[in-house]
Amino acid sequence: MSEKFIKRTDGSIHFRSDEEFVLENGQTLKQLELVYETWGELNDDKSNAILVHHALSVGAHASETPVNPEAGWWQEIIGPGKAIDTTRYFAICINNLGSCFGSSGPLSVNPETNESYKGNFPEVTIGDMTASQKLLVDKLGIKKFHALAGGSMGSMLSLIWAIDYPETLSKLILISSSYKAYPANIANRSIQHQAIRVDPLWQNGNYASNEELSGFKLARKLGLYTYRNSSEWNRRFNSHKNSSVKDTDIIQYMEYNAEKFSKRFDANSYLTLTRSMDLFDVTKEYDSIEQCFSKITAETLVVSVESDVLFTPQQQQELYSALQESGVNCQYIEHHSQYGHDAFLVEKEPFTKYIGDFLNL
Amino acid sequence: MSEKFIKRTDGSIHFRSDEEFVLENGQTLKQLELVYETWGELNDDKSNAILVHHALSVGAHASETPVNPEAGWWQEIIGPGKAIDTTRYFAICINNLGSCFGSSGPLSVNPETNESYKGNFPEVTIGDMTASQKLLVDKLGIKKFHALAGGSMGSMLSLIWAIDYPETLSKLILISSSYKAYPANIANRSIQHQAIRVDPLWQNGNYASNEELSGFKLARKLGLYTYRNSSEWNRRFNSHKNSSVKDTDIIQYMEYNAEKFSKRFDANSYLTLTRSMDLFDVTKEYDSIEQCFSKITAETLVVSVESDVLFTPQQQQELYSALQESGVNCQYIEHHSQYGHDAFLVEKEPFTKYIGDFLNL
Repeated sequence: MSEKFIKRTDGSIHFRSDEEFVLENGQTLKQLELVYETWGELNDDKSNAILVHHALSVGAHASETPVNPEAGWWQEIIGPGKAIDTTRYFAICINNLGSCFGSSGPLSVNPETNESYKGNFPEVTIGDMTASQKLLVDKLGIKKFHALAGGSMGSMLSLIWAIDYPETLSKLILISSSYKAYPANIANRSIQHQAIRVDPLWQNGNYASNEELSGFKLARKLGLYTYRNSSEWNRRFNSHKNSSVKDTDIIQYMEYNAEKFSKRFDANSYLTLTRSMDLFDVTKEYDSIEQCFSKITAETLVVSVESDVLFTPQQQQELYSALQESGVNCQYIEHHSQYGHDAFLVEKEPFTKYIGDFLNL
Repeated sequence: MSEKFIKRTDGSIHFRSDEEFVLENGQTLKQLELVYETWGELNDDKSNAILVHHALSVGAHASETPVNPEAGWWQEIIGPGKAIDTTRYFAICINNLGSCFGSSGPLSVNPETNESYKGNFPEVTIGDMTASQKLLVDKLGIKKFHALAGGSMGSMLSLIWAIDYPETLSKLILISSSYKAYPANIANRSIQHQAIRVDPLWQNGNYASNEELSGFKLARKLGLYTYRNSSEWNRRFNSHKNSSVKDTDIIQYMEYNAEKFSKRFDANSYLTLTRSMDLFDVTKEYDSIEQCFSKITAETLVVSVESDVLFTPQQQQELYSALQESGVNCQYIEHHSQYGHDAFLVEKEPFTKYIGDFLNL
């Protein structure tokens, strides 16, 4: 057998294929590991599945399961009676290739050396991530999803999937999305990458302790800075007309977050995943954006967030217009919020409505 | 004589006071040095002076002079027939205390040790900067300015001056301004400060070579990232619908800028000046913002820039409303621009009009 499915103690499933997995850049992984979780029951004709794509810093645990009651990153959206109603749908979330929550990535053991890849894990693209997931989904026998849904980096996977495998989905939900890397995002990430790499403890990714990487923590702080806009920063630190702001409170808040992040997320994975976003451009092998998007057959929903300074509403409008002009059946919602890029993770009610309405149309 | 005025070969004037200068935090400078430049002629009753306050990364050279024909940072605004018309007005710009272009700062020689202060230069506030300038202005015998004008950090000096010395000015121009440090700005700067400090070559500010400080260059890149908004980044890198962005172009652009900056700006000064902005809050010694602003007697112009993500239009509106509610005679212009925080430095025509009209009212 060249594939194995192993149920882990936390309820997630570990899939391993011992066939060589060829990456977009020609490099290969001798084996492919993917960890995923599911919610609800797959119906007999396998037509009720929804593939949820996760964002940068989380994994397959999108919602609680009977085995793992810990709240997931989309806890409010996935579950019985929720927007992705698991009494009707079978939801699946797969940890992205390159990440650090069980799927092949820098922390995985390289079967050729029997040691973790660490700094030697190859560069992967968003297309590599979806190709790896398609391989798994084929093994599961799911031929057509009711829907694909992703936010932020997750929406990049959903979008590229809808272009590469248009026959495999009916609906597509893209939240705080992007169809290519924009200059400001590349600029921001390149500063983060440099912060990681100039750290003398980094050692080309072969560092001794993730938690001691000051450059990585600095990168995370910069990420954090961009996830919320200035109004949200004001609200959080109660900065109003007649109050002064204590700079030490803000420094401490960022330090606390970066410390916490460095305890749960691998720096090599962070570099691998954020680099994949730099390389992202769904149109790169097409003559025009319309030629690319006209491959999409799924009914599509684009949700932008007004205060998102990272993936701006302007970028979402550009995406929506291009989808429309390419003949895609497409809806657009501009969500008014102060929560910026993180809105889809923190605002339960509006996103329940947007997603629920669209799925049940 | 406890003061000296020395004309330097570049046409700027070096002022030195050998009286102890006491800072807001109680620390002292044994001597005070300030370098300034002037344009036009001071009239007999000394009523035609305009004090221009410079932003973070520049100095007293706001415009060309007969001795120094190099374009200044407000070249398009200061000069004969320009918005600040030097056939009518006498303009003066003083290098801020803590900076690295001749005024007392980390590069100055500490008379107690006969060596540069470097990492031992004391923490200074924006109020310390204006207090030092007031001392010089008094020596020059200027009792009342026709106007004060500042953009970005410069406007913080102009504003605090108008509150502390209301009788010394008729008009006040605040561009891309702020009356206190906002949480998002503190967050951003705290990341920059940490980038500077974690660099092993930093050595608590007693580094061997400014140009070799990778942390300082990283900080500058982060500054650069925030000075323009995403539209401007798109425009600069020609990112439109059917073009891909080369990440290497963006990385190179930032690297080039940071390298250039590290050759002309001292890292200790950068830390000193950006820290002074963290500590900035004109209202801190008052019971309310209205009590503070009601001290201002100057006619005031507030100019905000639509695309400014650093000092947002929302902050400018807050400033403008508070000025109005405090009884200040105040105008507000929201300038439409894609140039973000840098607009006042790069857009000649609209700012010529805003400033020219307001000065000549």
